[in-house]
Amino acid sequence: MSISDRFAELAQIRESLGTVEADPSRIVMEKILSPTEAIIGNRPTILVGTNNYLGLTFDSGVLEAASAAMHEQGSGTTGSRMANGSFAGHAALERAFAEFYGVPSAMIFSTGYQTNLGLLMAILRPGDKVVLDSHSHACIYDGCRISGADFLAFRHNDPEDLRKRLRRMGGEAEGALVIAEGLYSMLGDTAPLAELCAVAKEYGAWFMVDEAHSFGVYGERGLGLCESAGILDQVDFITGTFSKSLASLGGFCVSRHPEMQLLRYGSRPYIFTASSSPANIAAAHAALDAIRTRPELKDKLWANANRLHDGLRALGYELASTVSPVIAVRVPSKEGGARLWNELLEQGVYANLVLPPAAPDSAALLRCSLSAAHSFAQIDAILAAFETVGAGAGADRAACAEAGAR
Amino acid sequence: MSISDRFAELAQIRESLGTVEADPSRIVMEKILSPTEAIIGNRPTILVGTNNYLGLTFDSGVLEAASAAMHEQGSGTTGSRMANGSFAGHAALERAFAEFYGVPSAMIFSTGYQTNLGLLMAILRPGDKVVLDSHSHACIYDGCRISGADFLAFRHNDPEDLRKRLRRMGGEAEGALVIAEGLYSMLGDTAPLAELCAVAKEYGAWFMVDEAHSFGVYGERGLGLCESAGILDQVDFITGTFSKSLASLGGFCVSRHPEMQLLRYGSRPYIFTASSSPANIAAAHAALDAIRTRPELKDKLWANANRLHDGLRALGYELASTVSPVIAVRVPSKEGGARLWNELLEQGVYANLVLPPAAPDSAALLRCSLSAAHSFAQIDAILAAFETVGAGAGADRAACAEAGAR
Repeated sequence: MSISDRFAELAQIRESLGTVEADPSRIVMEKILSPTEAIIGNRPTILVGTNNYLGLTFDSGVLEAASAAMHEQGSGTTGSRMANGSFAGHAALERAFAEFYGVPSAMIFSTGYQTNLGLLMAILRPGDKVVLDSHSHACIYDGCRISGADFLAFRHNDPEDLRKRLRRMGGEAEGALVIAEGLYSMLGDTAPLAELCAVAKEYGAWFMVDEAHSFGVYGERGLGLCESAGILDQVDFITGTFSKSLASLGGFCVSRHPEMQLLRYGSRPYIFTASSSPANIAAAHAALDAIRTRPELKDKLWANANRLHDGLRALGYELASTVSPVIAVRVPSKEGGARLWNELLEQGVYANLVLPPAAPDSAALLRCSLSAAHSFAQIDAILAAFETVGAGAGADRAACAEAGAR
Repeated sequence: MSISDRFAELAQIRESLGTVEADPSRIVMEKILSPTEAIIGNRPTILVGTNNYLGLTFDSGVLEAASAAMHEQGSGTTGSRMANGSFAGHAALERAFAEFYGVPSAMIFSTGYQTNLGLLMAILRPGDKVVLDSHSHACIYDGCRISGADFLAFRHNDPEDLRKRLRRMGGEAEGALVIAEGLYSMLGDTAPLAELCAVAKEYGAWFMVDEAHSFGVYGERGLGLCESAGILDQVDFITGTFSKSLASLGGFCVSRHPEMQLLRYGSRPYIFTASSSPANIAAAHAALDAIRTRPELKDKLWANANRLHDGLRALGYELASTVSPVIAVRVPSKEGGARLWNELLEQGVYANLVLPPAAPDSAALLRCSLSAAHSFAQIDAILAAFETVGAGAGADRAACAEAGAR
């Protein structure tokens, strides 16, 4: 009775979370007030645990475009693009991504998860070789796993370790696929993409970058960390999601290879799924336009990130990375993390509690993510809450600092 | 250079489709006029190739609910429910599914594809045994594959073949998972669920049914074929999608086992994906309410299905199944199928061209799917188009009938 065993196993996981006072997985936001505020437990709460980097979920242009698309085209497409035809908005959004990146190929998918799964299932075959960053997102691992490719991880953000792995592969390194992300969502650290790309290319490998958390946030034009690293003309596949800066649901893949368009004919998570709803497509398209035309959003996000980062450091918290839109506070114990998280919530601040295995190299993380929609007053309120809970948990804070100093 | 090889392989697939005059995968609906009409190639075209069974994508209640949710909660949630918290609408929709089915457990997912992947990845482990209908949807196969379970197929809709497979498994049949669908989307045939369930239970196996195409369409209350078969109290897991009768994007799983709720803690396609957008959730919820309260929608769908089925038979077409909301015309050659499909399009009728491997047991299928939103006048126009193209393709039609007679 293996499924019963599985239920028992999951009950244990659930129970282990139950030892904390509140369980983040059971948080319900009773009412959403804005991109940065919700009612949780009957209390107005500042949200610093979303991925709403540009704060566009309540943007009037985004809402108007989504509403118009829904009224003109309906609430859903009720079918797959390959089996039931494409709506014009889906094709237009692909053209917009291709134009924005200046590449011949763009495809969109119904979720970000299905984007990486769809790309990897389409380009990889059993026996193909993949070398991926050890901190890669679950959907990258899942895509590699289901493809049947042989995959191994290189040490997080370490081009020399990547080089070692490729060298050991001998002739098989040529044509292998190297995968990295731009901004890593848990620690908030960024990949040395220029170096990783150079190593991949030196060995004749293909290079794929997931910009889920960095698209719209990094790069002069907002194209992501491949743009800042100056490798847009070398990277083979860039994937991203609509559910962060683009304020919607779905994902995209762009490529300098015109042949990437052909993946439509071989990507099961693209072929065998309903295409995204007109409202989702129109919201993502309007948000893409905002990224192209309103650089001030990105500037405000970074001003907020700097303010929170500096403030938390001044309070003595140990942070997992240099400043970025994701600021993760390291906590040396799971229990301490849970306690701080609960106390922050009581102070009206919702951050993310991240426990192993999602918290790499740490017992726990309090993950804060910034939004262009945060006001400085909100940032200061978040800092005040961290100061209060830190004072009440002096031992934890001292331990945080000590753990960081090691 | 395996990815280059893969590009070449896909180019061949693309080229083989290019031999038909128009390529269904490149159809763009320039403007959507209603659930049953679009502009394709500058021409108003009747849609009889969607999965818009209840025609709710333009329902005023659905659109108003979706629009209100979007304006109140934003265009996206920008996060996973497990990492970033649940919006109240997501939790409410789960309660609505649980109540509608009268079961303790319901979970919703961001797409239908991720629903089956998410359930199967969570309940199966390498070495677990699965016996699934050979015509199962791609996402069921993908879920089995990525789980690492041992899976084999029983002959489509054949309880005796299922019994044979379970018997051969000896003691391992106990605790195995048997999977069937309700309505199969390509041939439009339905599963003998009572018989399949009885065989599964006889051997102590778990039983899962995907009602993607049958939810809202079958059963006195619209719960699907498990309801008509009288096995709601025996089936272990029922999955379904929002992108057919529910006029949205997403999926659900319900279970009579309270432990199914625990899958949240172990389902990677649930944990590591953004939750669906408020508009999608509200649209699905309003459509669910319509299914509960407006049985006339289902009645109209069936009247339409009967009218088209009878009409096509009277025209001499060979149909793949008894009457259902999916009516598939068998065509004995791929080229003949492509020709008929193109001619129908010229007549202002959009059906689905289904080629192997998606067309089981046939060279090609012209798949027609009905909607409650079709008027009888539209059904008659579809029949007139079939009559016209049939007269111009007498040989194909005769061959269809002959192939069917064998």
